[in-house]
Amino acid sequence: MAPSANAFPQRAASAIPALLECVHACTDAARLRDALPFVVGGAQVGLVMPGVARLLRRWPEVYRVGDGCIELIAGGDSVQARSDAVMETVLALRDAGDVERLRGWRGETWPVKASFHAEPCLLVERAAVPMFGALAFGSFVNGLCADDHLWIGRRSASKQTYPGRLDVIAAGGLSHGESPSTNVVKECVEEASIPPSIAARAVPAGLISYATADESGLGVKRDCCFVFDLELPATFVPTPHDGEVETFRKMHVGEVLDSLVSAPHGWKPNVCLVIIDLLVRRGYLSPDADGYVELVRALRQ
Amino acid sequence: MAPSANAFPQRAASAIPALLECVHACTDAARLRDALPFVVGGAQVGLVMPGVARLLRRWPEVYRVGDGCIELIAGGDSVQARSDAVMETVLALRDAGDVERLRGWRGETWPVKASFHAEPCLLVERAAVPMFGALAFGSFVNGLCADDHLWIGRRSASKQTYPGRLDVIAAGGLSHGESPSTNVVKECVEEASIPPSIAARAVPAGLISYATADESGLGVKRDCCFVFDLELPATFVPTPHDGEVETFRKMHVGEVLDSLVSAPHGWKPNVCLVIIDLLVRRGYLSPDADGYVELVRALRQ
Repeated sequence: MAPSANAFPQRAASAIPALLECVHACTDAARLRDALPFVVGGAQVGLVMPGVARLLRRWPEVYRVGDGCIELIAGGDSVQARSDAVMETVLALRDAGDVERLRGWRGETWPVKASFHAEPCLLVERAAVPMFGALAFGSFVNGLCADDHLWIGRRSASKQTYPGRLDVIAAGGLSHGESPSTNVVKECVEEASIPPSIAARAVPAGLISYATADESGLGVKRDCCFVFDLELPATFVPTPHDGEVETFRKMHVGEVLDSLVSAPHGWKPNVCLVIIDLLVRRGYLSPDADGYVELVRALRQ
Repeated sequence: MAPSANAFPQRAASAIPALLECVHACTDAARLRDALPFVVGGAQVGLVMPGVARLLRRWPEVYRVGDGCIELIAGGDSVQARSDAVMETVLALRDAGDVERLRGWRGETWPVKASFHAEPCLLVERAAVPMFGALAFGSFVNGLCADDHLWIGRRSASKQTYPGRLDVIAAGGLSHGESPSTNVVKECVEEASIPPSIAARAVPAGLISYATADESGLGVKRDCCFVFDLELPATFVPTPHDGEVETFRKMHVGEVLDSLVSAPHGWKPNVCLVIIDLLVRRGYLSPDADGYVELVRALRQ
């Protein structure tokens, strides 16, 4: 897919307000206005909604809830002792039914980190990640093919999150210590049966990061997504492998754009950001259009 | 220049801290901590340093200097009357020698706008733009050629700003009402003798925006730069035309990277941002490298 400056300039210009709405839906920072930084070992590692802060006040020996931040004070410098202290409070909240999302208990620990390469300062149950607004990292692959076409997947109807929605060709969460380029090859193989020799040609193209409150008002989603572009041979057809994706379809960029505008809820929300970023980077949107500056800024806030 | 994921991964990883320093040098938001929004007609259109705010207090009938912002109150809803009132205060500051930069009086008015497509709400003398921290818009063209090479210009020794520094193949400021794609073709012709038929192939690739205090502490530079990539035929050699550029040289991306790291002051500062953005978009930097996330976020703050 060669960059093409003059593709659909008319359509793209009229699409910009709708694309800006897609971005805002995923990155609405206004709902986070009253969220408090969650501090562990002197560094901010999360963001906590006021409703959660009220619940955490029950354990003043574990959390110091101030006006400006919530600090984990139990466990000293020990990651294990901190994690044990936090686990006790999270279990109590689950058992009391105070936080809806904790009903989706995963039995899986998640590393809470100040930045991508930092060592974890705390491990929490995965279902409690949004409660603390801990950072999550993922990778997303745009499957590009000739003549301005993209390979788009439809998520399996049995997926826990966003079943049946449209998605990029491959994507996945990064476990602690896993590199984005290793993860991309793994996800390409697992989700779309792309051979490693082809997947390894994926070119890194930056990242999309955002923070937003979830529907419950008790969770914060803070994601940092590494974006890759993968040019696929004309003869290659991706096929579902691990059941995460139901079908793949080759769509023209114009059709993708129309779908983002007319049926944004048909897409996994953060995938909208990844594709709008692609449209910007590859010149499918004209900077002459009213709202272009606001769109790019919103995307990269 | 095809994207190449695995170009110089070693060199690029070690370069990231130096590239981050380049970005910070151009976008240091810390120095703007005490700057006040400049409000005209109910909308923020600029940013004023405390030293300038103190000077503007001399005209309480023109500016309302509050704790949280500075508001233009003279002139009502009339752009002409506002502009006349502001001009009187700027002339007085120039004549008193209070603002060094006003000695570079241009005799040219600049449209102050809330956003790119908004109508100007005020016209100010161009030398006073940083005093009010008004937004400026420009376009930048990356001149790309085969085998990971870039055309780089050296600014004329007689340029008023950044003489002798390295620069992209073409760039320019946008006048009010001029579209980025029109401006790009004009600048390509004027600065590098690129025929319009080739210049028109420039592909928009997003934008770089930043705000920073100038050296005097009395000015704020708020720029929004539209970025274009232009793939040039192997046989094409740009030549200076209007005297803005002295010479052009084809440099390998690795050489450009080394130069940004070892001699960042040899480059026009905002051009460093444009080229780092190119390195990110085209996969010359690996997301596996420590500091990649911080670099991309700093670039797109």
